[in-house]
Amino acid sequence: MPPSTVNRQWLLERRPVGAVAAEDFRFNEADIPVPTDGEVLVRSLYFGYDASQRIWLTDDGGYMEPIRIGEPMRTMGIGQVVASRDPGYQVGDLVEGFLSWQDYVLARGDGPMPLRVLPPADHPLSWHLGVFGVGGLTAYFGITDGLQVKPGDTVVVSAATGATGSLAVQIAKALGAKRVIGTAGGEEKCRWVVEKTGCDVAIDYKTDNLDARLRELCPDGVDAYFDNVGGDMLDTMLLHMNPLGRVLICGAMSSGYCDVKMQGPSNYMRICTYQLTVRGILLFFYRDRLAEGAAQLGEWVREGRLHVEEHVVEGFEHAPALLPTMFTGKQPGKLILKVADPD
Amino acid sequence: MPPSTVNRQWLLERRPVGAVAAEDFRFNEADIPVPTDGEVLVRSLYFGYDASQRIWLTDDGGYMEPIRIGEPMRTMGIGQVVASRDPGYQVGDLVEGFLSWQDYVLARGDGPMPLRVLPPADHPLSWHLGVFGVGGLTAYFGITDGLQVKPGDTVVVSAATGATGSLAVQIAKALGAKRVIGTAGGEEKCRWVVEKTGCDVAIDYKTDNLDARLRELCPDGVDAYFDNVGGDMLDTMLLHMNPLGRVLICGAMSSGYCDVKMQGPSNYMRICTYQLTVRGILLFFYRDRLAEGAAQLGEWVREGRLHVEEHVVEGFEHAPALLPTMFTGKQPGKLILKVADPD
Repeated sequence: MPPSTVNRQWLLERRPVGAVAAEDFRFNEADIPVPTDGEVLVRSLYFGYDASQRIWLTDDGGYMEPIRIGEPMRTMGIGQVVASRDPGYQVGDLVEGFLSWQDYVLARGDGPMPLRVLPPADHPLSWHLGVFGVGGLTAYFGITDGLQVKPGDTVVVSAATGATGSLAVQIAKALGAKRVIGTAGGEEKCRWVVEKTGCDVAIDYKTDNLDARLRELCPDGVDAYFDNVGGDMLDTMLLHMNPLGRVLICGAMSSGYCDVKMQGPSNYMRICTYQLTVRGILLFFYRDRLAEGAAQLGEWVREGRLHVEEHVVEGFEHAPALLPTMFTGKQPGKLILKVADPD
Repeated sequence: MPPSTVNRQWLLERRPVGAVAAEDFRFNEADIPVPTDGEVLVRSLYFGYDASQRIWLTDDGGYMEPIRIGEPMRTMGIGQVVASRDPGYQVGDLVEGFLSWQDYVLARGDGPMPLRVLPPADHPLSWHLGVFGVGGLTAYFGITDGLQVKPGDTVVVSAATGATGSLAVQIAKALGAKRVIGTAGGEEKCRWVVEKTGCDVAIDYKTDNLDARLRELCPDGVDAYFDNVGGDMLDTMLLHMNPLGRVLICGAMSSGYCDVKMQGPSNYMRICTYQLTVRGILLFFYRDRLAEGAAQLGEWVREGRLHVEEHVVEGFEHAPALLPTMFTGKQPGKLILKVADPD
């Protein structure tokens, strides 16, 4: 990429109501900012897409500061350090962490997730946003620590084509789960889940009767459920959990993250009567264990036990148009926008 | 009590819809049954009242076999063995476990909760239904194992005048919780909670704004919440939990246990974003640890650290009329019906 003095940006133009749209963002050109003490200037290379970006666009931001009107949209991303006022980062370092939809981003090392300096590796750089990024690490800590999946378990993973779900399925298998069932929308995605992730059976949530299929597939109940969707599916799953079963609340895709009032699980008293354990997961709480997770994931990748799927689109101009596709049947795996090559 | 050949019974006459009523039961006189192999004939002395009895009256019974029309109403109770075909029980033994609203009940030692032979003790016999019964043991395992309350915690207990809640408050204090807040309905009950259970503050859910009071009383958030009521209170509490906080689902009194569709907590995504742990409790799952719990409770009682409150009514004829009062502002503490004295 030739040196540039222009910093392209996508700014939040208006707060979305309901589904997010490309038109909620506005293109802008600004000067390249100059880092002050403790700041690092990062040139953007890749942006990763997460459904939780929709939460940051709400009035209260959910678990982070909301993005304000006129601010560039926040994203997980990979970039290269071009100037640094933090001794922990050197010019030329490749880094992964919170960036925003700009060519040049002022980042800090001390946010809720560390700005990680990426080691040299023999895999595509973008994998640091997928299998070694939020999706992979959330799947890893969700299956191991949150759900404590162990050999012999029957496990269900919803949104099993997603960046997190597809890895959750594979990690559960790697840990010896007896049976892993994934849910996905449509015949093609269901086939993908079985062929690529090693899922034992896929349930098509669009055409199958989940309750009936679970009765048929899991007559002995479900030990662990990795929930990415919420809504009716969570409610149905609660009725299929075994006594002392475990549920992980990882996401609520079915809500689109845009409802003021979400649908709570009306069967939640099963938590009481079956003495279930329901845990949440937010990767921020594992910030001191990220290296451990990445190391284990790396080992499984090298052993060929994890199939890594990415869907990479190229060109900064596409940044806003891709976000709504997170909620409308995108490709399986991790959705990534390539912005530039490293030096 | 003079020997009798008549077995008085209260049978389920019709399945209640909505609130349970005394008229849902019918008086009957039957012969005294004769135990067959493995059975024990127990003469009823005390019946304990639990809100969960309402669940057993639903079509599916919740977590136990539903009570069928024409069957005597199931209850936790204390009785005396008058005939035994199980070598584990001797004539004259005082026992506690699942009985039913009859003078004479055929019981078994191998149900979901053991029929416990009661040791001689220097406290009222009825305490085996309260502090040493379902309420006390649920409070004990709920606070210790379910919520893992530790010194310094801020703890909230709903329905803090109840048989379980009032002991949960005291057990949390005994374990060193920094602050314990109880909820109760009405000024008088709130005063009782503070005076008798050592609760630091009581919130009147009928007149106080729970959200505002919690912001005022717990500016640093809540570490552990013992939920006996569900509904809006659970939803509000979820917004006040600290990151990594713990919630125990013990009951849902606010529902009256009679709704086909219960109100699920619409703020449940806080489980994800604050990485909460939500666990259920059903004493059946602690059946191998009941003696451990009773021993610890006994020690605290002897040390004067637990205030035990009972509300004892006398006379078999009152059995059905007391059940609806579980949901309509009964006295604080454990509600017990005395049926007869032991020999």
